[in-house]
Amino acid sequence: MTAKEYLKSVEDVKPRVCIHGELAEDLYKHPLLQPSLNSMMLTYSVSHNPKWQTTSKLLAGEPISLWTHPYFKKEDMIRKVDLERMLGRMTGSCFQRCVGMDIISAMWATTYDVDQAKGTHYHERFQEWLKEAQAKDWAIAGAMTDVKGDRSKRPSQQPDPDMFVHVVDKNDNGIIVRGAKAHITGAALMHELFVIPTQTMIQGEQNYAVAFAVPNNAPGIIHFLGRVPSDTRRLEDTLMDTGNIDYGAGSHETLIIFDDVFVPWERVFLCGETDFSVHAVWRFASYHRENGCKAGVFDTLIGAAALLAEYNGVNNKSHIQDKISDMLIETEAIYACSIASAVLGSQHPSGICLSNPIYTSCMKNLGSKWVYDMINRAHDISGGILVTMPSEKDLRHPDMGKYVDKYLKGVAHVDTEDRMKIIRYLENLTMGPMQVEICVGAGPSQAERAVMRHIMPLEEYKDYVRKLAKIKNPKDK
Amino acid sequence: MTAKEYLKSVEDVKPRVCIHGELAEDLYKHPLLQPSLNSMMLTYSVSHNPKWQTTSKLLAGEPISLWTHPYFKKEDMIRKVDLERMLGRMTGSCFQRCVGMDIISAMWATTYDVDQAKGTHYHERFQEWLKEAQAKDWAIAGAMTDVKGDRSKRPSQQPDPDMFVHVVDKNDNGIIVRGAKAHITGAALMHELFVIPTQTMIQGEQNYAVAFAVPNNAPGIIHFLGRVPSDTRRLEDTLMDTGNIDYGAGSHETLIIFDDVFVPWERVFLCGETDFSVHAVWRFASYHRENGCKAGVFDTLIGAAALLAEYNGVNNKSHIQDKISDMLIETEAIYACSIASAVLGSQHPSGICLSNPIYTSCMKNLGSKWVYDMINRAHDISGGILVTMPSEKDLRHPDMGKYVDKYLKGVAHVDTEDRMKIIRYLENLTMGPMQVEICVGAGPSQAERAVMRHIMPLEEYKDYVRKLAKIKNPKDK
Amino acid sequence: MTAKEYLKSVEDVKPRVCIHGELAEDLYKHPLLQPSLNSMMLTYSVSHNPKWQTTSKLLAGEPISLWTHPYFKKEDMIRKVDLERMLGRMTGSCFQRCVGMDIISAMWATTYDVDQAKGTHYHERFQEWLKEAQAKDWAIAGAMTDVKGDRSKRPSQQPDPDMFVHVVDKNDNGIIVRGAKAHITGAALMHELFVIPTQTMIQGEQNYAVAFAVPNNAPGIIHFLGRVPSDTRRLEDTLMDTGNIDYGAGSHETLIIFDDVFVPWERVFLCGETDFSVHAVWRFASYHRENGCKAGVFDTLIGAAALLAEYNGVNNKSHIQDKISDMLIETEAIYACSIASAVLGSQHPSGICLSNPIYTSCMKNLGSKWVYDMINRAHDISGGILVTMPSEKDLRHPDMGKYVDKYLKGVAHVDTEDRMKIIRYLENLTMGPMQVEICVGAGPSQAERAVMRHIMPLEEYKDYVRKLAKIKNPKDK
Amino acid sequence: MTAKEYLKSVEDVKPRVCIHGELAEDLYKHPLLQPSLNSMMLTYSVSHNPKWQTTSKLLAGEPISLWTHPYFKKEDMIRKVDLERMLGRMTGSCFQRCVGMDIISAMWATTYDVDQAKGTHYHERFQEWLKEAQAKDWAIAGAMTDVKGDRSKRPSQQPDPDMFVHVVDKNDNGIIVRGAKAHITGAALMHELFVIPTQTMIQGEQNYAVAFAVPNNAPGIIHFLGRVPSDTRRLEDTLMDTGNIDYGAGSHETLIIFDDVFVPWERVFLCGETDFSVHAVWRFASYHRENGCKAGVFDTLIGAAALLAEYNGVNNKSHIQDKISDMLIETEAIYACSIASAVLGSQHPSGICLSNPIYTSCMKNLGSKWVYDMINRAHDISGGILVTMPSEKDLRHPDMGKYVDKYLKGVAHVDTEDRMKIIRYLENLTMGPMQVEICVGAGPSQAERAVMRHIMPLEEYKDYVRKLAKIKNPKDK
Repeated sequence: MTAKEYLKSVEDVKPRVCIHGELAEDLYKHPLLQPSLNSMMLTYSVSHNPKWQTTSKLLAGEPISLWTHPYFKKEDMIRKVDLERMLGRMTGSCFQRCVGMDIISAMWATTYDVDQAKGTHYHERFQEWLKEAQAKDWAIAGAMTDVKGDRSKRPSQQPDPDMFVHVVDKNDNGIIVRGAKAHITGAALMHELFVIPTQTMIQGEQNYAVAFAVPNNAPGIIHFLGRVPSDTRRLEDTLMDTGNIDYGAGSHETLIIFDDVFVPWERVFLCGETDFSVHAVWRFASYHRENGCKAGVFDTLIGAAALLAEYNGVNNKSHIQDKISDMLIETEAIYACSIASAVLGSQHPSGICLSNPIYTSCMKNLGSKWVYDMINRAHDISGGILVTMPSEKDLRHPDMGKYVDKYLKGVAHVDTEDRMKIIRYLENLTMGPMQVEICVGAGPSQAERAVMRHIMPLEEYKDYVRKLAKIKNPKDK
Repeated sequence: MTAKEYLKSVEDVKPRVCIHGELAEDLYKHPLLQPSLNSMMLTYSVSHNPKWQTTSKLLAGEPISLWTHPYFKKEDMIRKVDLERMLGRMTGSCFQRCVGMDIISAMWATTYDVDQAKGTHYHERFQEWLKEAQAKDWAIAGAMTDVKGDRSKRPSQQPDPDMFVHVVDKNDNGIIVRGAKAHITGAALMHELFVIPTQTMIQGEQNYAVAFAVPNNAPGIIHFLGRVPSDTRRLEDTLMDTGNIDYGAGSHETLIIFDDVFVPWERVFLCGETDFSVHAVWRFASYHRENGCKAGVFDTLIGAAALLAEYNGVNNKSHIQDKISDMLIETEAIYACSIASAVLGSQHPSGICLSNPIYTSCMKNLGSKWVYDMINRAHDISGGILVTMPSEKDLRHPDMGKYVDKYLKGVAHVDTEDRMKIIRYLENLTMGPMQVEICVGAGPSQAERAVMRHIMPLEEYKDYVRKLAKIKNPKDK
Repeated sequence: MTAKEYLKSVEDVKPRVCIHGELAEDLYKHPLLQPSLNSMMLTYSVSHNPKWQTTSKLLAGEPISLWTHPYFKKEDMIRKVDLERMLGRMTGSCFQRCVGMDIISAMWATTYDVDQAKGTHYHERFQEWLKEAQAKDWAIAGAMTDVKGDRSKRPSQQPDPDMFVHVVDKNDNGIIVRGAKAHITGAALMHELFVIPTQTMIQGEQNYAVAFAVPNNAPGIIHFLGRVPSDTRRLEDTLMDTGNIDYGAGSHETLIIFDDVFVPWERVFLCGETDFSVHAVWRFASYHRENGCKAGVFDTLIGAAALLAEYNGVNNKSHIQDKISDMLIETEAIYACSIASAVLGSQHPSGICLSNPIYTSCMKNLGSKWVYDMINRAHDISGGILVTMPSEKDLRHPDMGKYVDKYLKGVAHVDTEDRMKIIRYLENLTMGPMQVEICVGAGPSQAERAVMRHIMPLEEYKDYVRKLAKIKNPKDK
Repeated sequence: MTAKEYLKSVEDVKPRVCIHGELAEDLYKHPLLQPSLNSMMLTYSVSHNPKWQTTSKLLAGEPISLWTHPYFKKEDMIRKVDLERMLGRMTGSCFQRCVGMDIISAMWATTYDVDQAKGTHYHERFQEWLKEAQAKDWAIAGAMTDVKGDRSKRPSQQPDPDMFVHVVDKNDNGIIVRGAKAHITGAALMHELFVIPTQTMIQGEQNYAVAFAVPNNAPGIIHFLGRVPSDTRRLEDTLMDTGNIDYGAGSHETLIIFDDVFVPWERVFLCGETDFSVHAVWRFASYHRENGCKAGVFDTLIGAAALLAEYNGVNNKSHIQDKISDMLIETEAIYACSIASAVLGSQHPSGICLSNPIYTSCMKNLGSKWVYDMINRAHDISGGILVTMPSEKDLRHPDMGKYVDKYLKGVAHVDTEDRMKIIRYLENLTMGPMQVEICVGAGPSQAERAVMRHIMPLEEYKDYVRKLAKIKNPKDK
């Protein structure tokens, strides 16, 4: 689809979305969703570049965009990372399509595994759905994180059983689900929602082990738009103070309520097979931690800090240059982990290539710390003006504007307005949702520590040392 | 003065303040200034507690508040730090009075030094002004940072000579000054502005070596209110989404234009003595880097993170506890530096006690990094909900509110609304101006590195090592 | 005592010390102990400086050194910190007297508390012993850390009950103790050993709650000298390669065996009062974490790095200067914590001043990380030559020496030999025991996290936030 | 060659090596070189595994080991990284062969470039030499770093012109070179030395722009063995205290003097072409920063820390597990950079594949910091015993040994001796040369900052931001 076709087709979906206390009437014109919509449209535009196209096995070799294409080869994963980095650079923001893309591959493998183990037919169903998704070039939200209630209790132990999405009824035609999914990226603007469990499920939690796809306008679905810092600057009558006028400093995310939503069987891809919940989660998490958008957004952060240093006349100071270098290093180290996770990925019997969770864990864990270090350096370079600069309206004021223009001037050859724009860009990028998204999106830093402890062959490492220190291996005693 | 008396007296001042493109009419009722005004009033309220009162030498022993009291003793500095920490805890914010307080002591010593060296009479003038300030219990803005233009050039080399505040004319009655001061904390709500130079001045920059005090409504003064993230949430008709309803997540700061402002000689405290510029700056900076507010605000950050962990049911997780411990450690280490800077301060011949710049530099430099580490941990603890939570209006919606209430519930014994409030507090504190204020307020991290290199007796340290390594000291060769 | 008198008096003690597989015959001439002995003697020499003297209440106002003087006032603690920093600078090393000094004050308070609670007479006994210690100006080892065996088990649960020092028999005259204490600083060269428990003891562990003093040569006591990196360079016939010829890069520490050692009642200061074990431990730990030696040793590290940078001709490079600045900042921040812990200490009813464990915990925790950062920077400045430089003997070789002299030359005005000496100093300081001593001496970093969590008023912090976020306090509901 | 054949062949070389003041007589039996020799032999042993073999184009497809094989393909670089990681795990040490291996590929490309630009014939010569190297399976030292003298001066400005290796004479047969190369890994045990310049050379420094190969026993060559911490433990009559008995905690490195060494023209590969100096250096540096040995050695460090935690009974403590996880993450992130540098490498017209300097710079820069963090964690886990443990001889002492055995016991099922061995392993790895090798080997951390600033397209990054902030690009104005 072209961007325009996307807009046209999604305008028919019209999910119920509650925005700051009101059910949005003209959803696709709502100013708070414009940057998200622009990003979405950009993701459709770039798909027409042959570089980011591929062909579908399911559709007899028809050309499709990468967004609905499972990662069959390592190269597919590298391409995804590079597509994401490019879009990160073009939008300075989250562009919202990666979640659905990652879930497709995770579920391709998982439905296959369940079928192999249990004799079910999820994989075929899933392929049917995917075929339609590819043919219609759907925008798909991936919905994993439940609201979770009391985090010290399992899903089945919660005082309110609805704190994790679960099956409340079944019949010949399908299932009824209830619950809510939180932090769902771009969800208001998608054609479809794809739901998977949020964690391992155990015996007795069969109803919570559920994965399915529904149209975004299915009855019972309600979205609540999440607030982000400075969100309402977009409602002002001038937009320079948003910093990133077209794309904003972040996507939108919604809390999605599933108020007894019906899902027909042909769209149910896991239902009760508790052992496989964790497969869906881990695989999705690993794909998602690998994403290239972070590096792309960091590139714009570095560019902005370097540009402001130039505008201020301090770009040749060695400590500024060192800070820029360190930002470059951390960004590329994160990208290197993405590349390694793809190159050192593994082939799954279903035909899918799995990303290597070792390197996606490294990337996510380091990134969740480094994003703060990078913001620290950017602020240190830019100084207090980030939080003390007058508004665009002050600059435009017929009598007063001249003072702002005169006194916020940096080096001679740069217009004050340009300097103000770059300051706003930095303000909005570094004091908006980006840091939290990178810090805890795809799991908090402790999650990756747990993964590493789980995956890495620590006993083998002990053996190396036993050999070197000439300690008999207890297995040989 | 009581808080009410402050309000009454300041209402007569009415400086010209441009707020988002409009000259404020009813300045003291402007919603964007309410949190600042509340903080200001609180600083007057607490002054009546005998714990925070002292007596004035200039006013024959009359009781005065600490805010206009020079630091004559180390205990005065420790008291200031503790007063600030307490107010940091009470407001979760900058409360705006410390700048003026710190400038008073810096200028007490500096005017004394100039007089000693040059035979001028600044010190007496200054004392006269201070006497009035104490008697009238003025709120005083400290205005140091110039807008600076091209930072690679000195004040006298700027294409536009007005990029640093300077004297453009003199007559028998006084001086005329032009320029602008940026990032001036709380300035719209003060009775007086106290201006000092922003850096070392050299031969040929006599006009830039100028310090003075003016009433905030002096002709030629115009303020522009700085924007901060999420500032306009305060204009919404419900206030829960501001996070910190009474005090906001920061003070206000203004860009102050001095458009040919007249200052009578009796309010001029430095005028042309270039050598003494740096004294005013360094002493002020050292007092200001010592301030206790950071620790107080961090205490609320830690409290909020701990509270949300409790509301989420994860307060017993060891990695959460480790993060809280690390936050406590960094906060107390910063406070320890404040205490050391006071205790190891030095007595100046003018009767003032100077804070020790070694320890204030340590504090500032470490704090400017740690604030990001603390926010990192707070975000890691709180999770994505910080940037995806629906608005208060969604919670209050007659039909839809029930979903928000149901699904954003944490542990059973805590109301959803309370959980939402604490999340909003964290959002606003950690994605508002606080981080930048702490990072670059009182100088960027590189400034303190320079101070340390300048102060510390590196040659002496080399001597210790020469002795230990049995290397002859070159001086003895 | 003078240093010579110390040597003479301690030569009568002659404890049994096993050094690299041999019971030392001429202990005080053993080359491996010479640097320790030099440090010990230095601690006696400096005591005669009036600056480091005080008077004894117990000895009717007679002058004594600080080493046996309890901290009755905050100033005593500040003096101790400054004495230690000075000695750290003079020795570039641990000088071994602080442990005994810290234990004296910890036990002064603890024996007092036990007596108050239990009606025992430990405090009087302790004062009697201390009087003798002061009169004879004893060097006293503090022995706290037990060998601990299986750390997952309590003292009373260990398969071998001797893994913590404990009472194995009692009679009218005294007690018999068995066990071992590890990492005891300077122990081979002390007159006396002072033993306290290593941790909280609980009901059923009465025999482990034991504190006492014994002469170092009491029957049943055996020391094993611990190895440190490069220890045997001191056995070579030239000493330049030791780096720190007089004092070495660390004290010595021994493993002390108590093989059924008899202690008369008048030297027993805790025996069975399990509740008070933790008091002795925490107070000692807090005093010990406060010590000023770290800052003093870091001063020499900084001096050495700066000197080598100068010898290499790179001292003006900005990244070198930044590294030096950062080292200065971390050193002074640690020192600031020491000062704060003293100034914000508290008076104990026994007349002792307790250091504030908040700030000693900060200091220890930060120091245990920063020592590695400092070594990192020092290595980064000095380069590979630290681990590739030929030996002193190569330099002295009649034919070959000229090559070493020619090619290891740095800047023109510095002798190659001096450059080699400073490299050796850095090698030995940064790849010797210092880092481990600072990292885990006085407890590993996790211990201080636990202390902070225990001490800090987290509930009070939550209250600040509840008030700010307008959340009702549950206590008021 | 087999390991034995290597030993036999190298025994004929017998370079002059000065070890601790003596020219070694029986070089290959010298105890200080045994661990190095064991590593060298191991590198020959593993080469016979088909996994680490390849074939030579120069030798008409004959099988050769990887060590003399240029990196023609990305896979060659990945194989090298994996071979190195494996050997790092097998030796816990530097195994010394990578430098020569990396120089071969760097010079393959550089000689090609010079010939293209200047019409010289270096490439052919180089291939001839390499053919012999491959046929004879030589061990080759790579010698880059000059001694450098006064680092503030260029080679041609040094008071002593010999501070950088340079040509002092030329004739029809060859050149005479003088100077010294420092920190040359494994050099005493190599067949050949391969010399390249250490930095950019400029006009007037033609004599310094020289690269060549010489047999290690060429007249005029003298090695001085560098000292490392604890080196002489290997001279003791028991070896447990060396920690890593077979391989030591590091390779050996020598200072090599070139005292007017003659090199025939056919072994000269650069001579006066100043512009190409930097090519040799940068390419070599990039290959060398990519190496996999660090990750392999870290694996043993992690294994050792985990094993000691187990022996101490603390392996289930969450803070220990977190530390282990963080070590795993940093190790794998470094490895990921290696992989990315190979995968994202570029093909050079000479047929060689160049590693991507972006990712090798990241790896080196991060590794040079993380090695200290890893040691910090390892020490924090292991505790003070690392620097206080008695010697092996104490354990073996007929009477005293029983005490050591009894009291240094950890958990019940592990022998005290095993616990002591692992402690020694950790001591020797973490307080030996490894940290400095990783910190500054292949360049200090500042070098990579410079590389990044040089390579990364900062102007392009600024363009992304200009577009997003709607700032006109100055090029379009």
